[in-house]
Amino acid sequence: MGRVTWAAGVDLGGTKIQIIQVNTFGTIGERVKIATDVTGGPDAITQQIVDAIGEMSDKIGSEPAAVGVGVAGQIDADSGVVKFAPNLKWENVLLQQDIKRAIGVPVIVTNDVRAATWGEWLHGAGKGAKNLLCVFIGTGVGGGIVSDSKMLSGYNNTAGEIGHITVSLDGPQCTCGNKGCVEAYAGGWALAKRAQEAVTLSPQKGKRLVDNAGGDISRITGKMVMEAGAAGDALASQVVEQAVEAIAAGVSGLVNSISPEKIIFGGGVIEGSPYLIDKIAPLIHKRTLDAAFEGVEIIRAKLHNDAGAIGAGALAIRLFVK
Amino acid sequence: MGRVTWAAGVDLGGTKIQIIQVNTFGTIGERVKIATDVTGGPDAITQQIVDAIGEMSDKIGSEPAAVGVGVAGQIDADSGVVKFAPNLKWENVLLQQDIKRAIGVPVIVTNDVRAATWGEWLHGAGKGAKNLLCVFIGTGVGGGIVSDSKMLSGYNNTAGEIGHITVSLDGPQCTCGNKGCVEAYAGGWALAKRAQEAVTLSPQKGKRLVDNAGGDISRITGKMVMEAGAAGDALASQVVEQAVEAIAAGVSGLVNSISPEKIIFGGGVIEGSPYLIDKIAPLIHKRTLDAAFEGVEIIRAKLHNDAGAIGAGALAIRLFVK
Repeated sequence: MGRVTWAAGVDLGGTKIQIIQVNTFGTIGERVKIATDVTGGPDAITQQIVDAIGEMSDKIGSEPAAVGVGVAGQIDADSGVVKFAPNLKWENVLLQQDIKRAIGVPVIVTNDVRAATWGEWLHGAGKGAKNLLCVFIGTGVGGGIVSDSKMLSGYNNTAGEIGHITVSLDGPQCTCGNKGCVEAYAGGWALAKRAQEAVTLSPQKGKRLVDNAGGDISRITGKMVMEAGAAGDALASQVVEQAVEAIAAGVSGLVNSISPEKIIFGGGVIEGSPYLIDKIAPLIHKRTLDAAFEGVEIIRAKLHNDAGAIGAGALAIRLFVK
Repeated sequence: MGRVTWAAGVDLGGTKIQIIQVNTFGTIGERVKIATDVTGGPDAITQQIVDAIGEMSDKIGSEPAAVGVGVAGQIDADSGVVKFAPNLKWENVLLQQDIKRAIGVPVIVTNDVRAATWGEWLHGAGKGAKNLLCVFIGTGVGGGIVSDSKMLSGYNNTAGEIGHITVSLDGPQCTCGNKGCVEAYAGGWALAKRAQEAVTLSPQKGKRLVDNAGGDISRITGKMVMEAGAAGDALASQVVEQAVEAIAAGVSGLVNSISPEKIIFGGGVIEGSPYLIDKIAPLIHKRTLDAAFEGVEIIRAKLHNDAGAIGAGALAIRLFVK
């Protein structure tokens, strides 16, 4: 058996670290998932990643040619410094440099949603597309844009924050400080919050949701709202409908502004309720210019929870190996 | 005197054709403006352009090395066919091919707003920027996006239709069929329409505007609304304020999604009321993520009515000469 050339793709989250072997010829190999040692701080987590890649290398019988890491946070494009990662409580962590020193191969650190977009583009539902918009709807809403075969990063390396497109001038308060963001309707936290507010105003209409939450309004989650909506609960359905409207409006603005060929929907909320795509798609059609919507495909993400790790590994190969 | 190498930059509008000599070393030379012979159809207009370039060549003493044309309409990226240009009442006009046959040099046809963005990027307020957002507010609202030193065109070559970003889910009807578009608040036609509607509802409050329009509500124009707003008229001010809010919200979504370094505002409404930029800028700051807004400059376009012709010429040089 010939030796494979591979990259370690790392998805560093607040609760889990996932690492996947991504081979240069496009296949996936070993994989490992470990709990993030958040209490240990940056040094402990860096060591966890280095150790796990070491064990993976032993199994495979060769060192990785490069390492890619996706992190939920703001990343400096040049240095790979994690400027701010709220889930990890990190500020200005030299992750790229430290992993590189420890393993001795090129390392790229990028934003987790950008990494997932790389994954869907190079190995998933967007394979081969030159113009792509990925929309990930989970607790938050984020995405990535590929235009003319180039991943957009922008001046501040923050491109893809599509959850913070305003779709309602005086809409609900978002965690970002703005009002009426897509995320303030459609993020998991927003589904929960909006349902909690609606239930508080109409306890009788919201009885089902409150019962599902064990009688405690504050325990209503986004997932419960999605489930109750799917089961026909009127109050939950209304919250979900508004989320669908907001997503469609936000994505429509991007269709008109950047003209993607494929629009890929993924993330926890979509994974749990893929039927949402069938509700969103006709509204996008309705809100976009005919010339911009012509030929556009609206599809579901393929890589599920692996998108970030596979994308980070594929990006490392693209940058350093091929 | 040495011979200059130059391109003819053509801005083809529904009422005027403007042609500017753009030299390869970055200067501007001869210029001509003629009335568009709309009644003569595509052949007559093509001949007008060819003749005007011929006269310009005689004056300069050399033929152009290339020709660039900006047209208000949908352009096929590969063929340069004008698929649809409502102002000219054109459908599927082979403008690029016909000018090329007549003059015998390479020709590029592009959308007029995209051409203006090329102009501001290569010769105007955006010179040297790698990440740029141009916003032109006139009768309609359109723009162009440069990301990582590349002009975005998108799958359908329609990128830049930023006037049709939804900023209000149930907002005012737009001419595009959607509701709540930026243009439905801020385009010249929308300023007029919204003021006319407000005046109809509150004739007493709108007395000043109606007087300015000679007593005929239907004659209130966007320009009158801007002027009355600047003069402190309460009804007009409200219409203008909402336009400012809508522009800021739409641009903010793009700042978060694509992360430009410079945001350039131009077009007739801005030319007439440049103070609007000072009202829009703080609202963009308020609505965007700190990480995305960091270091962003919000400035006024430099080339005014020349942007389209200069941009079309500069694009032709970039594509065919340099």
